[in-house]
Amino acid sequence: MNKALTQLEEFKEKVDRELRIFFDKRIAEVSDIDDSAKEMMRLLKEYTLRGGKRIRAAMIYYGYNCFKKNKEKELLKAAMCIELVQSFLLIHDDIIDCDDLRRGGLTLHKSYEKKYKDRHFGESMAIIAGDILSTLANQLLVYSGFNGKNKLNAISKLNQVIHKVIYGQALDIITGIKNNVKEKDVLNIHHLKTASYTVEGPLHIGALLAGAKKRDLDILSDYGVRIGKAFQIQDDILGLFGDEKKLGKPIGSDIRQGKKTLLVLRALQNGNKQQKAFIKKCLGNTKIGLKDIERFRQIVKDTDSLTYSQGLARNLIEMAKAKIENAKFRKEAKEFLLGIADYMLERKF
Amino acid sequence: MNKALTQLEEFKEKVDRELRIFFDKRIAEVSDIDDSAKEMMRLLKEYTLRGGKRIRAAMIYYGYNCFKKNKEKELLKAAMCIELVQSFLLIHDDIIDCDDLRRGGLTLHKSYEKKYKDRHFGESMAIIAGDILSTLANQLLVYSGFNGKNKLNAISKLNQVIHKVIYGQALDIITGIKNNVKEKDVLNIHHLKTASYTVEGPLHIGALLAGAKKRDLDILSDYGVRIGKAFQIQDDILGLFGDEKKLGKPIGSDIRQGKKTLLVLRALQNGNKQQKAFIKKCLGNTKIGLKDIERFRQIVKDTDSLTYSQGLARNLIEMAKAKIENAKFRKEAKEFLLGIADYMLERKF
Repeated sequence: MNKALTQLEEFKEKVDRELRIFFDKRIAEVSDIDDSAKEMMRLLKEYTLRGGKRIRAAMIYYGYNCFKKNKEKELLKAAMCIELVQSFLLIHDDIIDCDDLRRGGLTLHKSYEKKYKDRHFGESMAIIAGDILSTLANQLLVYSGFNGKNKLNAISKLNQVIHKVIYGQALDIITGIKNNVKEKDVLNIHHLKTASYTVEGPLHIGALLAGAKKRDLDILSDYGVRIGKAFQIQDDILGLFGDEKKLGKPIGSDIRQGKKTLLVLRALQNGNKQQKAFIKKCLGNTKIGLKDIERFRQIVKDTDSLTYSQGLARNLIEMAKAKIENAKFRKEAKEFLLGIADYMLERKF
Repeated sequence: MNKALTQLEEFKEKVDRELRIFFDKRIAEVSDIDDSAKEMMRLLKEYTLRGGKRIRAAMIYYGYNCFKKNKEKELLKAAMCIELVQSFLLIHDDIIDCDDLRRGGLTLHKSYEKKYKDRHFGESMAIIAGDILSTLANQLLVYSGFNGKNKLNAISKLNQVIHKVIYGQALDIITGIKNNVKEKDVLNIHHLKTASYTVEGPLHIGALLAGAKKRDLDILSDYGVRIGKAFQIQDDILGLFGDEKKLGKPIGSDIRQGKKTLLVLRALQNGNKQQKAFIKKCLGNTKIGLKDIERFRQIVKDTDSLTYSQGLARNLIEMAKAKIENAKFRKEAKEFLLGIADYMLERKF
């Protein structure tokens, strides 16, 4: 097995332990407010701990470790901030995408809806539950044991990252209702939604906590943006071809939402008249069945769209690795970043 | 006219000018992302500048001014953070409360819905537009020209305040679907939603930027919590008895939403059988007409519920003023805080 993956799994255990402690403290804290506050915090704990590879938290951790190895405990706590942000964004995304399932369980608004038998109530509670997580993420950095200037830089980066990913989300929603989406638009969404958010942003947050300078941040950007793009391409591939159980979300949900992923755009570009018509018919069809999803998949293969996306991801990964190989970073962090780059292509969920 | 009100109006002009500059910069910045990002920022600018007394920003300003008088320009910029938070919370509240109008114009989700003819799209864009404002609010403090430690304290307080007000919102939603709401619950909501958010929180943010110590913060709390409660009671009164045009929101919307305000609870407590039945029938009736609202009002008067609320607000104001009168704060700030306390009872919107 990829060594970076072992590192990631060990890291996940550590950060999940901290997350559990963190949420238990919050649950105790809000007990004197009201039962509903306690219920919300419990749901947020379960939702956050239910899944997630903690790749973003690991990027904060190893972003710091490129330069320093100390304050392990403090670093773990700070690294949690991005996992809270991830839950916050997913909770709002789930409402926006009308998804019922996430990470193998009910989405947060559906959990509330199920319990209180009221759809609007469920969505309302999920909106504010997400809002609460974003304040907690900021607080984690404020209270982390690093020097003030570094913390302010990290807080600024965190908010910048959230800001960007949300614009990506806006663009994503808009392209869902637009007809003339171009490959450029999709790559722009990838850039905003994932490239800066999943890898570059968290690496920078960690590096800034260690007091890194612009030149080092630039190297991390060169690496992070490419890895992030490859990550998103792989996500789209898994969304169409992956295993529903491993992914924890229903296969074909991208089709149902009419998402114009790179896979879809290439197929529309290279397909014959019949193939194009079929794809267009499927996009946004919320009732699409398995048989049509299977034909959709076959067209994506037959038009070389799958091969194209896979090739693009591979190139991005190679370029990203080259940037890190020559950098003067600490060995442990460097090995992790190189290993995780390979893992991006191997992952199945 | 109340002198503090003149101060507030002059302050509003200054902070609105800064808000306009701020949003214009953000609009220019996002122009290279996409037209949809620009459209969102424009809508947020219009929404934020459309109304609002800037009482919260003024509390940051005078909270600082209790202790220091310098860095006027930097202070104005920092003070804007709470107005961005206010827009963010209102935007999410408007979705939750299914309101069409706010500050005399369309709510943000309705603006989007009107333009794109899609309700879910409107709500989706408004959720993330609110999220974006919360990141901008944090950034305003990060980049304000105060010392690092004071800024971190202020950021922490800002997130704490948002955190609290959201729990208040959660409780508010929950009481909307509960039957056995008690006066204690309502006061708890007031405390969370307004007392700490409208006055105490912003005062603390300003005071922390000036490096204030615990003793001074405690005095500001004694004042702020009481003023905030009085503010909320007055809000409920205006919501039922105020002028629709001045308020910029439809009269009776609290009734339509089934909100159990203090006015309602007292009326339910003191009313006779018929009066109670009528009130219960009205609460949550989204189609209630003017004639029934008028009868609802009369019951609130006849049961002495209006008088009770007014008396409670008056007592809170007197206690709040006593706390400030003896404090060793700068004269200008002290006069403002005392004047604004009186204004809380005089205001019509």
